[in-house]
Amino acid sequence: MVRVGILGATGYTALELIKLLLRHPEVEITTLTSRQTGHPPISSIHPQLTGRLDLPLENLEAMAAAERVDCLFSCLPHAASAEAIAPVVNGGTRVVDFSADYRLTDLETYETWYQTTHPDPTRIGKVVYGLPELFRKQIIGADLVANPGCYPTSAILAMAPLLQDGLVEPSDLIFDSKSGVSGAGRTPKLTTHFPECNEGVSAYGIGSHRHTPEIAQVLGQFIGREIGVVFSPHLIPMDRGILTTAYARPTRQTTPGELMSALRAFYETSPFVHVVDHLPSTKDCAGTNNCHITARMVGERVITVSCLDNLIKGASGAAVQNFNLMFGFDESTSL
Amino acid sequence: MVRVGILGATGYTALELIKLLLRHPEVEITTLTSRQTGHPPISSIHPQLTGRLDLPLENLEAMAAAERVDCLFSCLPHAASAEAIAPVVNGGTRVVDFSADYRLTDLETYETWYQTTHPDPTRIGKVVYGLPELFRKQIIGADLVANPGCYPTSAILAMAPLLQDGLVEPSDLIFDSKSGVSGAGRTPKLTTHFPECNEGVSAYGIGSHRHTPEIAQVLGQFIGREIGVVFSPHLIPMDRGILTTAYARPTRQTTPGELMSALRAFYETSPFVHVVDHLPSTKDCAGTNNCHITARMVGERVITVSCLDNLIKGASGAAVQNFNLMFGFDESTSL
Amino acid sequence: MVRVGILGATGYTALELIKLLLRHPEVEITTLTSRQTGHPPISSIHPQLTGRLDLPLENLEAMAAAERVDCLFSCLPHAASAEAIAPVVNGGTRVVDFSADYRLTDLETYETWYQTTHPDPTRIGKVVYGLPELFRKQIIGADLVANPGCYPTSAILAMAPLLQDGLVEPSDLIFDSKSGVSGAGRTPKLTTHFPECNEGVSAYGIGSHRHTPEIAQVLGQFIGREIGVVFSPHLIPMDRGILTTAYARPTRQTTPGELMSALRAFYETSPFVHVVDHLPSTKDCAGTNNCHITARMVGERVITVSCLDNLIKGASGAAVQNFNLMFGFDESTSL
Amino acid sequence: MVRVGILGATGYTALELIKLLLRHPEVEITTLTSRQTGHPPISSIHPQLTGRLDLPLENLEAMAAAERVDCLFSCLPHAASAEAIAPVVNGGTRVVDFSADYRLTDLETYETWYQTTHPDPTRIGKVVYGLPELFRKQIIGADLVANPGCYPTSAILAMAPLLQDGLVEPSDLIFDSKSGVSGAGRTPKLTTHFPECNEGVSAYGIGSHRHTPEIAQVLGQFIGREIGVVFSPHLIPMDRGILTTAYARPTRQTTPGELMSALRAFYETSPFVHVVDHLPSTKDCAGTNNCHITARMVGERVITVSCLDNLIKGASGAAVQNFNLMFGFDESTSL
Repeated sequence: MVRVGILGATGYTALELIKLLLRHPEVEITTLTSRQTGHPPISSIHPQLTGRLDLPLENLEAMAAAERVDCLFSCLPHAASAEAIAPVVNGGTRVVDFSADYRLTDLETYETWYQTTHPDPTRIGKVVYGLPELFRKQIIGADLVANPGCYPTSAILAMAPLLQDGLVEPSDLIFDSKSGVSGAGRTPKLTTHFPECNEGVSAYGIGSHRHTPEIAQVLGQFIGREIGVVFSPHLIPMDRGILTTAYARPTRQTTPGELMSALRAFYETSPFVHVVDHLPSTKDCAGTNNCHITARMVGERVITVSCLDNLIKGASGAAVQNFNLMFGFDESTSL
Repeated sequence: MVRVGILGATGYTALELIKLLLRHPEVEITTLTSRQTGHPPISSIHPQLTGRLDLPLENLEAMAAAERVDCLFSCLPHAASAEAIAPVVNGGTRVVDFSADYRLTDLETYETWYQTTHPDPTRIGKVVYGLPELFRKQIIGADLVANPGCYPTSAILAMAPLLQDGLVEPSDLIFDSKSGVSGAGRTPKLTTHFPECNEGVSAYGIGSHRHTPEIAQVLGQFIGREIGVVFSPHLIPMDRGILTTAYARPTRQTTPGELMSALRAFYETSPFVHVVDHLPSTKDCAGTNNCHITARMVGERVITVSCLDNLIKGASGAAVQNFNLMFGFDESTSL
Repeated sequence: MVRVGILGATGYTALELIKLLLRHPEVEITTLTSRQTGHPPISSIHPQLTGRLDLPLENLEAMAAAERVDCLFSCLPHAASAEAIAPVVNGGTRVVDFSADYRLTDLETYETWYQTTHPDPTRIGKVVYGLPELFRKQIIGADLVANPGCYPTSAILAMAPLLQDGLVEPSDLIFDSKSGVSGAGRTPKLTTHFPECNEGVSAYGIGSHRHTPEIAQVLGQFIGREIGVVFSPHLIPMDRGILTTAYARPTRQTTPGELMSALRAFYETSPFVHVVDHLPSTKDCAGTNNCHITARMVGERVITVSCLDNLIKGASGAAVQNFNLMFGFDESTSL
Repeated sequence: MVRVGILGATGYTALELIKLLLRHPEVEITTLTSRQTGHPPISSIHPQLTGRLDLPLENLEAMAAAERVDCLFSCLPHAASAEAIAPVVNGGTRVVDFSADYRLTDLETYETWYQTTHPDPTRIGKVVYGLPELFRKQIIGADLVANPGCYPTSAILAMAPLLQDGLVEPSDLIFDSKSGVSGAGRTPKLTTHFPECNEGVSAYGIGSHRHTPEIAQVLGQFIGREIGVVFSPHLIPMDRGILTTAYARPTRQTTPGELMSALRAFYETSPFVHVVDHLPSTKDCAGTNNCHITARMVGERVITVSCLDNLIKGASGAAVQNFNLMFGFDESTSL
């Protein structure tokens, strides 16, 4: 049994992570931390776990938590996460980091977009990006994995195969994404107050959302060319799910069939990405680690539609998938 | 033209009030107050009002606001409301109070349920309860009206006619109410955070909700007998609407037809209460000042179902209805 | 491995059943039937199953399906279900029946409420009601189990312990239930058309819903006394979940603590029913086989609030729980 | 008083139209038609109208309806609409047509996209497109107006000013639209069944939606150049609202300020289009005839975000706005 701990266990991604790990035959959850005081049981925060996990939330330093576990999942905010886990990794405990701290490989890009000083700059650029469909080999056996952002996962999975096959121009990619509200976290805000966001759709962070450089970097490094990304996230009145509609320019005359073949070939051995003929709904992937993708040609535009559950394939499912690869389990275990 | 002002204009009831008053041919809104500083335009808080009302939010004392208006609507919280409007009423300006401050006629009951000292105790018990369907005569020409609570309106309108006609026992009334989330106000809280309350139903405040004594008192005073009330509110994942299912015990053998006749007779001259044969939905009343009611007999139980829009008939529509009666306009103007 | 088949596999309960069974280490799903022609893959109806179950929907008679399996789950409508499974059971194949056909133990009651002739009248009254928390011993090893209705499960679990302990009057029980829309099935109707039922709450079937006699019968047989039931279901704009607020009259002076103790003692050995101190939300049980219950005293009324996922504990989770007991597996396997 | 009638009065746009016309001081609704038999009152279909409009639904031919009115609004489906209203217009009664029949000015385009023979081909190309913000002069006094599609309104209003000022390339416009479910009409279908579309986002009709040629034609005729349009509609789990995120390529170096100035100048005299600095939500326009628009520059892309209520500014509000212009009333009356 692999003993695991979770830093920052009160959020939505932690809840999903716990639910997935409870089904994992080789995992024992031993430690949960939060800033809560008084050792409340996790089920007092997440009643979903009543009768399923009987552990207290401990106000524990990362190093103290690490001493009890073989693998630590960090659900802390950026900067706080790297600060907590850098010594843990140094000490030899494996870590899956949900934050953005080790995703960007360029320190300046990180510090510009996140407006903070990186607490562990020397490790920047040396950590594998935990998207198994693109970087499976590097994840196997890794000590530290940067778990991808939810929007980037939906964007990258749709376009990476078409870019790799040279079917679309790298310089002109538009990602129009629609996300459920759980992506905004568990802290109450006016924008996520029910009567404000229910029965409404809005765009936010156009041109300024921090997932923009992440998408550009990962796709760029994957094909070795510079990528031009426009990214527009939208808030949708539903709990969970991301659907990304991407617009690209073909490099040459192509057909829908060729696009679909490229996608199918690329994901032939990936258990969770399914290339479908119909236009998928986020609901098709809700509660699963799946990503459904399709492609269309409209006039002179290539359009892809990809969807996933932002809390599973966009966060905790991907984390368990990475964990499985890191520890030598079957990639699909408990997923 | 009647010049009106609104105290506490940033909430949801104030927004609905403004929208109704903008349609009123005899009203000019001149003053809006809030604790906001810097005189922001109301449309910066409520973008719905863009191009429709060009007024700033002023950080103004009630008395200063009163000097500019003929009628003041107070959307302040309880206690703060009475404190603000007592001198205004003393000074001769008419007021519609949305808070609970003047609804309860017994000081001790108020102070027990609201856990506060009443700022204007001498006026307690002398203010008309602004439910025109029961107290129209007293509202006409009144200087101060206590606008009813949203839940009590749905509860009282369904049961008052049956109690008055002696068809149901006053001692054993159960009101099971279901409300949209706007009823909880505009301040973000965990319970009204979208991913917490979307896709879920919960009860709250069973046995402790402050509308309990209000229902009991108003029904009791209306028929001159003591009322036994059990009141269970529930939070429903929708913006607006209240549906109350009420359970009563018949005093004697009766029929559904007799119940419906009693309701129809009672509301014959009330323009906003409609007795319907089918089981109504809150959606039938959304955006209107209507209340739809029906009655059923099941075994030895009388059941009524009543619904309304909590922000209109349950708050701002009722306020305008009261305003119309206070100022001698047709009761339905702008509604 | 137990080979299982599902009759009527296109509905929502069948989808949940498949998802649960796919996790079951001792089950192989071999057969799915529906009236669809052309052997479409199940994933074309339920895209959620893409890459998870690769089986066609066969237009197969129940007997033909039974030949391939050790256990058959029937998700057919009432009457059609008994007609299909009676010969199957006669032939020695075990069956879990989701329909109401074998729940009611009195033929006349069945035929009155369901307005149909029962296709298998001789078996009526001899089939165990599949609520393990009340009838675990009878379910173990059974050949045919009548899987309970979703509303009755929420109603019965809350009141059975209090009735058994003589704490509440059996003659005067009111169940006010709130259900998500998936309970209405997968066939499009005006009442479940999104713009009709979204943003609205309505009551339906007050006094005429077919779960009324089921609740009365099961509770009555459990305590050996006649039960008086008023049951009011409501449709809530959410996918899944049932919350039942029940009102009963205490038989003697009691306390909330005594009520809670009775509930806790009753469910001490039941893994899925949790007695909680707070007022629970359906969301706490969504996606799980759990039922959360609490009790309150208000004035002279006992109130219980119980919630569950109508598709899991209210249908498919209960079915798997029954299946586990019938076949000798741990009751919680895959749940 | 202008006497008006509505053909096809049972749908959602007709309901909104009735609600708006009931507030119009110069209008009397005299006639409602539908295929319903038995003259049911309109309130039996739309309970929202209980106590507000006491008219039966008549199974009446358009010509018979026209004899009673000065203006007819047709909410019939395409083809059926032109067939019904062609003789009405010939007979001298004014008509606002909600269908697409007279929007497209090229017969072949109409017959290709709508897969039907046009019942009134000679009038094609001679009917004004009822978007007052672009074609106010031609609408004033018109006898027949083609009321615009909901998606085209949101798309055209955002891009027309930028195209007119030569700020964006006409050949490469992408419109990514998100719509509430009421846009799909009132007929129950699996795709709009609550448990299918709630808690999910999906794209539909990419490259094949019939509003594509409408957008291209209207913008093209407005600036006298050919337009290249990619249009991707998405279904959002909410009742009403459309938000369109549009992507265009600037013709030259420009700034956000210049874009906003172009928009502001264009709509200076239009009472319902508001250019806002923030990223708007559909909720800001819900229940109003407003359209909120903003613009951004991201890298080398111009992005506009526009939103409106699909049933009001996207349908019935626009129809009343057109009616006002046709009959010489103030454009904003009752809106």
